[in-house]
This record gives sequence, C-alpha cells and structure tokens, in this order.
Amino acid sequence: MVQPFPSRTLSPCERHDNYMKALVYRGPEKKQLEDMPKPTLRDSTDAVVRMTKPTICGTALHILKGDLPTVAAGRILGHEGIGVIDEVGTGVSRFRKGDRVLISCITACGKCDYCRRGMPSHCESGGWILGNTIDGTQAEFVRIPFADTSLYLVPENADEDAMVMLSDILPTGYECGVLNGCVKPGDTVAIIGAGPVGLSALLTTQFYAPAKLIVIDLDDNRLKVAKQFGATEVINSTDGNAVEKVMALTAGKGVDVAIEAVGMAATFGLCQEIIGAGGHIANIGVHGASVTLHLEKLWSQNVTITTRLVDAVTTPLLLKTVMAGKLQPKQLITHHFALADILKAYDTFGNAGRERALKVILTNEYHGNDWGVKGR
Amino acid sequence: MVQPFPSRTLSPCERHDNYMKALVYRGPEKKQLEDMPKPTLRDSTDAVVRMTKPTICGTALHILKGDLPTVAAGRILGHEGIGVIDEVGTGVSRFRKGDRVLISCITACGKCDYCRRGMPSHCESGGWILGNTIDGTQAEFVRIPFADTSLYLVPENADEDAMVMLSDILPTGYECGVLNGCVKPGDTVAIIGAGPVGLSALLTTQFYAPAKLIVIDLDDNRLKVAKQFGATEVINSTDGNAVEKVMALTAGKGVDVAIEAVGMAATFGLCQEIIGAGGHIANIGVHGASVTLHLEKLWSQNVTITTRLVDAVTTPLLLKTVMAGKLQPKQLITHHFALADILKAYDTFGNAGRERALKVILTNEYHGNDWGVKGR
Amino acid sequence: MVQPFPSRTLSPCERHDNYMKALVYRGPEKKQLEDMPKPTLRDSTDAVVRMTKPTICGTALHILKGDLPTVAAGRILGHEGIGVIDEVGTGVSRFRKGDRVLISCITACGKCDYCRRGMPSHCESGGWILGNTIDGTQAEFVRIPFADTSLYLVPENADEDAMVMLSDILPTGYECGVLNGCVKPGDTVAIIGAGPVGLSALLTTQFYAPAKLIVIDLDDNRLKVAKQFGATEVINSTDGNAVEKVMALTAGKGVDVAIEAVGMAATFGLCQEIIGAGGHIANIGVHGASVTLHLEKLWSQNVTITTRLVDAVTTPLLLKTVMAGKLQPKQLITHHFALADILKAYDTFGNAGRERALKVILTNEYHGNDWGVKGR
Amino acid sequence: MVQPFPSRTLSPCERHDNYMKALVYRGPEKKQLEDMPKPTLRDSTDAVVRMTKPTICGTALHILKGDLPTVAAGRILGHEGIGVIDEVGTGVSRFRKGDRVLISCITACGKCDYCRRGMPSHCESGGWILGNTIDGTQAEFVRIPFADTSLYLVPENADEDAMVMLSDILPTGYECGVLNGCVKPGDTVAIIGAGPVGLSALLTTQFYAPAKLIVIDLDDNRLKVAKQFGATEVINSTDGNAVEKVMALTAGKGVDVAIEAVGMAATFGLCQEIIGAGGHIANIGVHGASVTLHLEKLWSQNVTITTRLVDAVTTPLLLKTVMAGKLQPKQLITHHFALADILKAYDTFGNAGRERALKVILTNEYHGNDWGVKGR
Repeated sequence: MVQPFPSRTLSPCERHDNYMKALVYRGPEKKQLEDMPKPTLRDSTDAVVRMTKPTICGTALHILKGDLPTVAAGRILGHEGIGVIDEVGTGVSRFRKGDRVLISCITACGKCDYCRRGMPSHCESGGWILGNTIDGTQAEFVRIPFADTSLYLVPENADEDAMVMLSDILPTGYECGVLNGCVKPGDTVAIIGAGPVGLSALLTTQFYAPAKLIVIDLDDNRLKVAKQFGATEVINSTDGNAVEKVMALTAGKGVDVAIEAVGMAATFGLCQEIIGAGGHIANIGVHGASVTLHLEKLWSQNVTITTRLVDAVTTPLLLKTVMAGKLQPKQLITHHFALADILKAYDTFGNAGRERALKVILTNEYHGNDWGVKGR
Repeated sequence: MVQPFPSRTLSPCERHDNYMKALVYRGPEKKQLEDMPKPTLRDSTDAVVRMTKPTICGTALHILKGDLPTVAAGRILGHEGIGVIDEVGTGVSRFRKGDRVLISCITACGKCDYCRRGMPSHCESGGWILGNTIDGTQAEFVRIPFADTSLYLVPENADEDAMVMLSDILPTGYECGVLNGCVKPGDTVAIIGAGPVGLSALLTTQFYAPAKLIVIDLDDNRLKVAKQFGATEVINSTDGNAVEKVMALTAGKGVDVAIEAVGMAATFGLCQEIIGAGGHIANIGVHGASVTLHLEKLWSQNVTITTRLVDAVTTPLLLKTVMAGKLQPKQLITHHFALADILKAYDTFGNAGRERALKVILTNEYHGNDWGVKGR
Repeated sequence: MVQPFPSRTLSPCERHDNYMKALVYRGPEKKQLEDMPKPTLRDSTDAVVRMTKPTICGTALHILKGDLPTVAAGRILGHEGIGVIDEVGTGVSRFRKGDRVLISCITACGKCDYCRRGMPSHCESGGWILGNTIDGTQAEFVRIPFADTSLYLVPENADEDAMVMLSDILPTGYECGVLNGCVKPGDTVAIIGAGPVGLSALLTTQFYAPAKLIVIDLDDNRLKVAKQFGATEVINSTDGNAVEKVMALTAGKGVDVAIEAVGMAATFGLCQEIIGAGGHIANIGVHGASVTLHLEKLWSQNVTITTRLVDAVTTPLLLKTVMAGKLQPKQLITHHFALADILKAYDTFGNAGRERALKVILTNEYHGNDWGVKGR
Repeated sequence: MVQPFPSRTLSPCERHDNYMKALVYRGPEKKQLEDMPKPTLRDSTDAVVRMTKPTICGTALHILKGDLPTVAAGRILGHEGIGVIDEVGTGVSRFRKGDRVLISCITACGKCDYCRRGMPSHCESGGWILGNTIDGTQAEFVRIPFADTSLYLVPENADEDAMVMLSDILPTGYECGVLNGCVKPGDTVAIIGAGPVGLSALLTTQFYAPAKLIVIDLDDNRLKVAKQFGATEVINSTDGNAVEKVMALTAGKGVDVAIEAVGMAATFGLCQEIIGAGGHIANIGVHGASVTLHLEKLWSQNVTITTRLVDAVTTPLLLKTVMAGKLQPKQLITHHFALADILKAYDTFGNAGRERALKVILTNEYHGNDWGVKGR
C-alpha cells in the first residue's frame, strides 16, 4: 500500500536540537509518532512549553475518524497537559522560563469581545485551536499563543497527574454540565454517559450537594466507577428501560437537571424524556448530526437547554478546589504511558470499554535536546 | 344538517337568574353563544366574577381546530379578562364583592411546590385551567378557584382595556420571551412573529433598552404595526432571505436573543440560523409537532434555548409599569365587540390578517340578572 | 418577695382537658412552666399541632433580657420544633390530623406581596410571630396560622432530632449566611461566631465546596466543634490578632465571604477588616445597636453587605439534603430534656460555654389530655 | 507670595516638539497649566493618545483639597476623554495610529485575577491610575498602559461630546448605582444627589423601566434638570423632610433601590431611612469618613448594601445604547472650554451650583507639535 503522507521520522544521524517527537495526524485513520521541528516563538505573546505530561482526549478519536475537517493532515494533536516554560516572548509578563504550567485547552487572547464577555471559547484569535488549527501538546514541545491568558501556574505542592485533568475535562464537565445545568443543593441530577467527561461532571456536580445523582451508561464497568465516584443510582440503559427507571426514582416528576455527556441523538432524546418541569438539559456531548427536539411536548414544560464549548474560565476556581482537596481528579486516570509509547496509549484509549480506560497520562521521558545525542 | 350538539339557548320565558350567556366549545369547529348555568362557589377559596371585559386568545383558535384534547365539548372558553367580584368563599381574604379584578390566565393554589418555586404554570391543582379543564371567561360570569392568588385588584384609575392585556399576552411575551431571553441593554433582539404575543414581547423587550429590535413576519401590515411599536428593523420573510438580512444587520455575528412567537418548525429553525454565539433562543410559540435541533452546529455555540408556559408571576410588576405609563398595552387592541356579538368577534379575530386584527375586546353588556327580564 | 405575675399552675383537681403545660414569659428575667389553655382553631387556615419536640433558640435569651419589646408578658415562647397535627381548619388542604410536621419559624400567608416575592419573613400577616406576637412552641400544643404554607410534612424515615434543626437555625445559617454570602466553590469563607447558627452556616457552606473555611470565636470548645464540623482553620480571637491571622491565611487579600453570626459591633467590624475586594459580608447576627461602617475604606472595595431575617423558603431544599445524607444536622444537638424540665434546659442553654451546649432538644412526654387524668 | 512649586511653562524659544501643555497638580489647592514633557511609550502594550476632548471630574476637586494622598504633586490630572492614537507599542494589536479612541477611566491589564473576574477596578497593575499614580488626560497627550484593554474605538458616526461621558460617569452611574442596585421594571428608585454621576445613574436607571424615579438634592436647579432627565418626583431635602416625603410616595413601604451619589454620612443615612424591606442601597459616593450603619433596625430588613469602584466593564454595552439612541449622554454637558482655558473651566466646574454646571468639555485646540511653532 502506498503511504500517502511522507513520514518524517529522522535517522539518528539526522537528528538535532531543532527536532522533537510528536504525534502527527496524517488524515483519517492515520497517526504517527514522528520527528517534527521543535516549535519556536512566533508572536511576542507566545510561550514555548516543554511538555511533561500530555494526555489523550476523546476528541482525538473524532479527528482520527475524519469528523473534524478543520484539522488538516500534518497537524500535531493534543490540547491538554502540563509542562515547563522553555521560552517566552517579550510580551509575556506572567511566566518565565522554568515555570511549571497547566495548559488550557482554550487559548484566550484576553482582548476580544468574546474573551471580555467571559466566553474565550469563541475568542476571535484563539478558542480551541491547539491540536486543531495549530500544533498541539502530544509532543515534546508546544507553542502556546497568548501565554499570559492561556496558561496557569502549577502550585508548588500540586499533584501533576491531577493537574492534567484541569486542562479540559474538568472545566468541560463543570462549565458545560454543572454550571449550565444550574445544579442546586437537594436537586436530582441525571448524567447520561460515564466517560471521562461525564465522570468529570459527576465529580464537580458534588460541589453543590445534589440529593440524587443518577448515572446512565451502557457499560457496567463505567457504572461501577460512577458509583465509586459518588453516583447515588446507576442505570444500565441497554435494556431500554432507563426512562421508566428514572421516573420511578423521581416519583414520576423527572429530574431537575439532565447532563448529556455522549453526543448522540438517542442520549439527547433520553434527556428530553426524563427532564422534569422547570428542569435544565445541559449538553456537553459533541454532536455530529441533528436531533429531534420534542417541542410539541416541551413548549409548556419551562425547560432550559444549553450548549457550550468549554470556556475554561473556571480553571482558577477548579485549581483552588483541587488544592483544597475538595476535588480528587486523579481518580480519572487509569493508565500511564511514556510519550514514546503514545501509539499503545491510543490503542488503550480507543478501546476504553475493553481496557477499562478513562484518562491516559503520557510522560515525556525525552529530556530536552539531550535525547538527540543519545541517538534514539 | 343535523345539529350534533344540543343548543341550550333558552326562550325568554325559561330564562331566570341562574343562567347566563357564554361561548361554549362544542367540539372541533363548533362554538356557540349559549345559555349556561351561572357558576356558583364550589370551594371556600373560590370567587365568582361578573365579567366586564373578556377577550379572545389565539389558543381559542387552536382549541377550535381540535388541537387541544384536554378541552372537552361543553366547555366555556376564555382565560382572560377583567370583571367585578360577585361572590367570594369563606377562605378568600384579599377580595370582596364589588372589587374590580384582573383575572390571571394562570390559576395558582399558592401552596404546592411549583407555586412556591415561582412556577404556578405547573401548579398541582391550578395552572392553565380556565377555558381548558374548567369553564372560562367568555361568559357573563366565571368561577375563579384560589381567588386570592389568581386575581389582582385593578387600581382605581386604571384603563380597563389596558388591564385586559395583562391577563395573558403581556406576561407571556415578557416571561417566556423577554425574561427567558435575558435581554440586556445594547442587545440585538429578533422577534419572529408579530401577532399579539410577539408584539407583547416587542413592547416589554423595550424595558431593557436593546440597541436593535428586529421583527420578522410574513404580513406587511403587522410589520408596519411592529415599526410603530418600536421595532428598529422589520423583515418580511416571505422571500426566504430573512437569515441573510439578519446577518447583514449583525455584521455576520447573529443576534443576542431570538424570540420565537409563532410555534412552527420553520420559525424555530430560523431562530437557530440567526442566533449568535452565546445567544438565547426563547420559545413562546405553542408547537404541535417536533422540530429539528441542529446540535451538529449548535453544540459548540454556547446557546441557551428556553420554553415556558407563562407563570404570570410578573403580573404585579407589569401592573406597576402600566400604571407608571412605561408600557402602553392598549395599542394591542384593534376591535371592540359586545359579548352578544362574540361570534362576529371570533370571525374578525380568526381572520386577523384580512381584518388587521390584533386583540379584540368584548364588553359584557348584560347587567347581572336583569337581562333575563328584558327577554334577550 | 412579691410575685408580680400570677402563676397559673393548676391544682390537680382543677386540671382538665383544655389546659396544657407551657413555658411562659412573664417579663424580663421571668419565665415559668405553667398551665395554659390549650390552643384552639381560630381561622379556617389554622392547625393545632401537638408538639413532640420543641427546642430553645438564642432569641429566647434576648427576649428574657427584655430586648424584644414586641414580646408581651404572658407569651408562650418558642418558634421551633416538630409535632403531630391535632386538628386543622376547613381551609387547610395539605395536612390532616395525625400528620407528623415540621414547624417553620416563619409563618407565611402565601398570598401577600412579600410571600409571593419569596420573602415571607416580612409577610403582612405572618413572618416571625410564633413565640413573639402569638403563642409559641414550648408547650404541649401550638396553634399554627396558615398551616398549609407554614408547616412541612416530616418524611417517613426521617430522624426527628435532625428535623428540629430545620425549623430555624439551618435555614437561618443557609439563607442569611451562605446564600446571601454567595459562597462559590474554591472560595475562602470566614464565619465569625461558632454558636448554633454560625455552625449551621458552617455546615451548609460546605454545600458549595469552599477551599478555606475559617471559623473565629472566643471559645476554644466551640472552635474544636467547628473543626469537627469542617472548618479548615479556627482562630480564637481573644488575643485581638484575628485580622492578622486571616490576612496571613489569605496572602493579604482578605476573604471572599465573611459571615457575621454574633450580632455585635466588634464582630461586624472584624468582618469589614478581613473582607477582600469584591467580597461579601453576610450578616446573620441580631444587632441591638448601630455599628460603624468604614465607607472611607470600603467605598472602593466592591463589597456587598447583606442583612436578612430568615425567610425559611429553603426548607424543602434543606429537607432533601438531610434526607439524602448531605447534611447531618443532628451534630448540632448536645442535650436532651423532658419538656417538664424545660427550666433546667434553659439553664443549660443559657450557660452554653460552661455546659458546652449547642442545641437542646425538649421532648414532650405529656400525652395529650391523659396527663390531666394522672393528676400532674 | 513665594511660589512653592516651580512653574515649568517654557518661553516660546525653549519650546519644542517634546513638550506639551498639561494641567498639573502642585499640591493641595494648587494646579497650573504647564509645559510638560510629551509622554512616550514605555511598555510594549502602551499607546500614546493625542487628546481631542478631555473633561474634568469631581474627583479632581477632591484631589485639589488634598483628600487623595496617592496623588503626588507634579501629577497631570484627568482620567477621562477621547483622543486619537499617536503611537502604539509593539504589543498593541487592536489599535493603530490615527484611530479615534475613548479612554476608559479604568486601566485594565486583562491578565490578572481581578481583570479576569470582571473587576479591573482592582487590576494588579492598573485600576484607576490615570491622573492618580500616573499622568492623566488633561493634557495634549497621554500615555495609556495596556491600550488594547483600556481603550475603545469611537464608532465612525459617533458624537464626540457624548463619547466623553462614557469614560467614567456613565459606567460609574450604571455599574455602581443601577446594576449594583438591581433595578427592575416597576421598581421605585431613589437617587440621592443630582450631580453628574447621580444624573448618569438617573439616565441609565431608565434602561430598566422603573415606575417611580425619585431624585433628592439640595439644589433646585439640579432637581429641575433631574426632572428633564426623567425623574418622576424630585425632593429638595433642605427642609429635612425628605424621609417623610419618600414614605408618602411609597405608601410607607420605602423604596426598592436607593442610590447614594454624594458620599456623605447624612446622605448614606437617608438611604437607610428610606429603604424598604428587601431593598438595595447602592453606594456610588466617595466617602472620606465612616458612617453609622443602623443594624439594630436593618438586621432584619433583608437589605443589600453595595460599594464599587467603577470597573468600566459595561463600556461596550453603553456604547451600543448610545449609538442606538437609547441613551443621550450629551445632555450632561453644560459648558465647553478650550484646553488653554482649563483654569477657567475648573472655576466653572468648582462652582457648579452658581454656574449651573454639570460636565465641562475641554477641547484640545493645540495641533500636535505645530503649536510650539506658533509660540503659544
């Protein structure tokens, strides 16, 4: 078979300081660990970060299916992780070389209307660009635009693995699910989908002392994890009786908040069936197709339906809750791999059910430019 | 043709004090002005109100099409109007015989969980019941359950016609459209549908000083009215270019708030096409069928979609704005008829386009039980 | 010494079914356990409740000092407790004889403007009237006006002692302290005063996952309790260094929320010294004198100061959190007494420091009218 | 008399391009129009703006009294105005030479915690610094730090005089008074103080359709202006009967919102006397001394008291309302002067009562460096 995209893995003798290892998207179903040019500063507000711990997000699987046309072949994937500042532009005032930083999945210019409205997900020159329209974090180094407003200092005594969860999935579960769902103490909350993002919603929903926390999924293992993470009830919806069970748990009134963490018509439909009058449906899932909205029933039900691309504006708040021990995101991590083994990591993550995988942490075992010397 | 529903209009000699004139639904496409028993107190919290000014709501047209199965044949229609207290139960403490009152379209027990959450639209023993599951206001008299929490005193110097608009359409436009849409000063707001409820949203949206107020409809006369009522731009969507025009008016960003005041898949679809990132779609329309929700586009657009059956909890607030001259609801009234001519009033209202009709006020010219004496 | 207030304790032979034991305020520093007429229904919306568990509130101590002139001599004290419905008026629809009920400290008519605005503390015909302007709950029976909107059904499997805490102190701590203070996840919260109400604020603040919870008091025992209840830091302010210590804990920025649960000028002053820019000072304390507000410093600090007489509108929410095990109010109870020993209970409660007393539960061991027969 | 501060007015032959005219604070009661060095870029995020229209703020009078110790002798005063970009640093991306800009009184770095919480009034490296800790706008040129987040583009067809009102007083009245006061449609609002800021609150309060708008002041002329600006009632409080009059206007209930726009103990005291249960007291005034807070009365009144240094985060919103004609700030301007006549302008502004002065616009009639040539 012809290889449509030239691999750029260098022979040891070609290697030098300006190259690094990176996971590169080479078109649908194609990804490779390649030697790529090490990123350099482009704008004065940029930083270059040496990754210490990248991770893999479910979005990567969508990209690899070819679902996201904004991602061009040749792109280094990844929008999460922590690292150490390697270099900063002259316009960066809040970080300097050597600072340990958390990379936000959302790049925020801090100046445009959207950023100033607290909605950097739609930043005019940022938003979700890492591993999408610019090179991402599954590499030894990454260039971060608008570093001052897109990075966070990792506190001294922070657990690094826990921090990685703050790049994307915790703010996503919290902002798109919990905050948009307006969870209050005493509420009955249903979370549809117990993947990493649904579980992040499950963890952060507990900031607000809901009375009932129902988690619905097709995978018994994930439901078992959900129980450990604080679900008060779990429902395997394989048998098609989820609506009936939720109604039994809520005296026929339906739930106060339904959080959709899957991204399919069926799960969004389930939310509509179980939502109570006055309730909130908070969509987190990435949808590839339209869904049916039953306004003939819902028009009079005083419901609120929200969508959101995470803004990651709650990262400082979440950081404080993690440091205070109110949130233990480390529980979301099931596997660790060396960055060199990222393809294995993708295999594990891509077969999450079989592998019982949630989040997979990668460790960049390459040490700056000395790895080239070692002829790997 | 056989008359399937027996008329109950009495001959003059049969008339007596316990009967009254009322507009009765007799099944799909059937309505009659009939002699019906005058309502009496049933519960201690009831009041009987002698109607002075009922009106006709668009919902009546839905009922007459047979769209609302909760409405049984034999039901007196109507859920709006003002009148004078004729009798109160022993449990009524806030009103007494002779008080001039505004009837809320929503009956609120004031005690159930929904009422106490500020959502009497879903009151366990009330809600929208007038002219639906119990007899309504298009009659000489009406029984109002939970009078203390379902009626409002009409201030001394209030304009009666203006007050009638507070029974339903103004709180509906305000609560379901404006409040749920979270209109703020400086916003760009689009209202789809310039019928009485859309125009009520148009009037009350101006409480919040939006910068642009775009009204979209198919009827040029209604758009002309919308302009008079404060629309800054009007769009006749007959040519299918409404989306394009809205985008031109918003520098391609879409609107901050889209208020759906029609209740059709096409108009709800239009809202989805013109809503900007971070925007609110506030549905007011009564929908008879499901719609397509484009989550494949909207999942990342940070939009909020709301539905609501009016709770009429803002009636005191609206009353204050009317009395202060901040709101002139009288402009919504285009026609007046005697209650005796209610069938003509229905004709006019049912041909709103041709008749250039918005709200139609009925006047109860019958004077208590003396009308029977006069042999009408 | 002359007894200025005639005692009404009956001799056994005078006793009969229409009398009951009650704790009666007889003017400053005077209280007695007396035989008082058993209350009867007065309005159709009344209920008479046979008390099973009353309790004593700090307000009683204020009354006994003569601080509350609205309380006349001869008044039965108490505005908290649970009991069993003995009789209901014809206008009561939500309760019937035999129902186990929680008595709210706030009586709500459910109809006036204040009630409908969610502020029944200022109800035109209710508010805090029990044990204040009408007879209260430290008795065998109590008449509850507006029973439908002033009582709550005690769930089947509820712990009775825990329920008693929901009459007043938990909604007070939650509404006046936590909700008014706008506590958010990650916040630094200081609570000044670790009495029962301050501790109620401490418990319910944890609904919102604050990062730091500093409790300040003069009593080491209460601070020890605060630690057990979830305080992350405690400060004994006897040495006058509380401000310095809070500043050290907050990197000199001050706290996000300061909850005043004492009611003195000094403690309110402390709140002003430790509040950070943009922070909230939520006053719970009952103040007998004016305080100095340092606007010369605070005018530019973007602070919010709130006061509130509890509305008890969150009782249903709190009930759900208790039933779900998210809140364990039973920890607030340190002592139990029989109602017959209420004077001893007052002694204990009045010497809270020495007795290490928080809340004191009374048990009504009299069984309806059979006690008369027994000649007590 | 000895001149304690050396004047730096140059003789024509000494003048050159690097000097400009500026109003300089020379210690209490001392101010001069002097030749000062033209500002230059210091940081990459700076802009230098050629002022076209500065103005004078009441704060200047406080400074001249010596009330603000942060302002050192030698400081160029002024924190308001519009101008044209003369030069931008390399880090400025949103503006370029020649852009007409509105200068915000609040300088926002856009990066610190406060800025990202929407509270740039407390920006770690900005806030209110212009004419305070760095040189201000009452000059031919001014250096603006963090230009991208501290300036706004003036729309093409905007009225320049109107724009000047957006630098400070309109956001101040709106944010500190109206938004903090939570004004709602139908509310009764009292504004204490009809100076430029009180009138700005008066104008922007009308965004929310209050039913009653009571303005209280000691100056009949200002009250007349208030009437023209939309007050429904005005009260001259000279006779000490203001409380009585407000109570008469509110059926003894007090107002929903009291906005303090003076900054004195007496006026803040008045707010406490007229506030209704559940009401909001929004302080705008700059206070030089502490006030008495009547917690012995207010503890149970469910009131909210707010303070705020303007954040100017609503400038974009206000700009939209001005451009849409919903707000006519030009009415606030009573006098125009040439910048060369700024001392006269100060005289007029400092005798506002006698001169019937509100805002005073200055026009920079100097044209860049050519004025030096003309020997002025």
